[in-house]
Amino acid sequence: MAWRFALVIDPAASDDPRTDFSGTFTPIDVAAPALSVGEMSTQRGDGIFESIGVVDRHAQEVGPHLDRLAHSAALCDLPVPHREQWRQAVEVAAEHCPPHGEAVIKLILSRGVEHGPTPTAWVTAAEAPDNTRVRERGIRVVTLDRGYGLDTPAKAPWLLLGAKTLSYAVNMAAIREARRRGADDAIFVTSDGFVLEAPTASLILRVDGRFVTPAPNGGILHGTTQLSLFAHLAEHGHEVAYETVPVSAMAQADAAWLVSSVRLAVPITAIDAVEVPVDAELTASFNQYLLSPRD
Amino acid sequence: MAWRFALVIDPAASDDPRTDFSGTFTPIDVAAPALSVGEMSTQRGDGIFESIGVVDRHAQEVGPHLDRLAHSAALCDLPVPHREQWRQAVEVAAEHCPPHGEAVIKLILSRGVEHGPTPTAWVTAAEAPDNTRVRERGIRVVTLDRGYGLDTPAKAPWLLLGAKTLSYAVNMAAIREARRRGADDAIFVTSDGFVLEAPTASLILRVDGRFVTPAPNGGILHGTTQLSLFAHLAEHGHEVAYETVPVSAMAQADAAWLVSSVRLAVPITAIDAVEVPVDAELTASFNQYLLSPRD
Repeated sequence: MAWRFALVIDPAASDDPRTDFSGTFTPIDVAAPALSVGEMSTQRGDGIFESIGVVDRHAQEVGPHLDRLAHSAALCDLPVPHREQWRQAVEVAAEHCPPHGEAVIKLILSRGVEHGPTPTAWVTAAEAPDNTRVRERGIRVVTLDRGYGLDTPAKAPWLLLGAKTLSYAVNMAAIREARRRGADDAIFVTSDGFVLEAPTASLILRVDGRFVTPAPNGGILHGTTQLSLFAHLAEHGHEVAYETVPVSAMAQADAAWLVSSVRLAVPITAIDAVEVPVDAELTASFNQYLLSPRD
Repeated sequence: MAWRFALVIDPAASDDPRTDFSGTFTPIDVAAPALSVGEMSTQRGDGIFESIGVVDRHAQEVGPHLDRLAHSAALCDLPVPHREQWRQAVEVAAEHCPPHGEAVIKLILSRGVEHGPTPTAWVTAAEAPDNTRVRERGIRVVTLDRGYGLDTPAKAPWLLLGAKTLSYAVNMAAIREARRRGADDAIFVTSDGFVLEAPTASLILRVDGRFVTPAPNGGILHGTTQLSLFAHLAEHGHEVAYETVPVSAMAQADAAWLVSSVRLAVPITAIDAVEVPVDAELTASFNQYLLSPRD
């Protein structure tokens, strides 16, 4: 991860798609300090983000990521991100990615500096870690209680459970707990026994030839990679479904994946130490699709 | 909040109290950028903090704050903070506070820069907002569901419910929700009907002449101001108690306060629009005590 690029976005006055917003972008030296100690992102994890996969300088699924950024902003009472300005910022960042290989562009919209007038925003780009092996070999996961019930997100929107906020300490702690248990990653489940998502990925199960993901009912981030893969599967005649998935239903899956924007599709080889079959051929075809240019 | 001071702390090799750690402190220009965009504090809210009240250049209750910082570090798998180094850093920050009046020193220990070798750490100092009026007039609060049950924190330590992490987006959202409801602040309650704490303060109730606070059973930060006030009350012959407090018990209180390190003791004038009596004289004596030098 030696190579990096970043730019700060100044608030735009309009969101006219005919506008050239390049004057609102300030490239920054990523080796130098760029943020104030008063940043609410740093003091309070108070902001939102997106991670966009980049393949050969093509930023993947930018539209769905900007949709979700706007959704997170609404949940967090942040000003609506100017879509066209962010789209152009992603474009500039992608141009600075290496011409070949995988990279990741992060969008960050912070509440701003304490007592400051506006949010602050920036975009970073960096080489992606090499995920080739993990996409082939797969990962072992453990289930971890997310602490709330299936109906909590709808009843308590201030818990921000459907927003992709910068407050990810729990997500990071869950991954550390999974490693302590000898696994690679976690799957969050509700306190009343339903499957949610992984700390930084969506879950897809194959059950009786159908592809199933837990319904994004407010407590789950709607995964852009899961969305993209479901569209691809449906196009190829497969049945896809959003369902309320009890923890016990995972035992019926004859294949399972965690999917996310940068690691892409990784097969799950075990859930709570119970082996899960791996469909290597299908997994390879998933990643071939996910590595192709997608908009 | 015009006036500010900050210093970055380099990792110390030892924690010998005879060591002069001033060489590990780098004062920074608070108007200039000081943090990397790769900071995990900013990308993931991945770190811990403390806010220490300062009165006339005296930092209050430094010991209990450093105890809690160490407790949060343990819960978050962060390296144990070098206590003597942090104590000296607070001392330096306090020397840079205005000679008269109230200030706040913040300690931040972040997971560090992504793929970097060590945590990063810094201390800031700033003038405190003027809380005189709110200490006299009090605040209206609403109860908000924290989403988990009373027994969740002990069962799911990866939820970090007893740690003072930088992932405070939910705490901030709860305060915004309270304001939307015409109140000033919130009191979190469990999904099974027990009282927890406020997003940035502890709750103290007076019921039948006894002072009661919800037991810090893992889901509540043990408030340094609440601890200090309980010691003061006990010294003056009052009965103090940590209890499991059902939401319904709040109706029996003939006085209630939110207490925290900077705002100090503010009387609650209403809970969910039900008026609560205010003991103005006792509140004034609480704040007189809390504004006196405390170690």
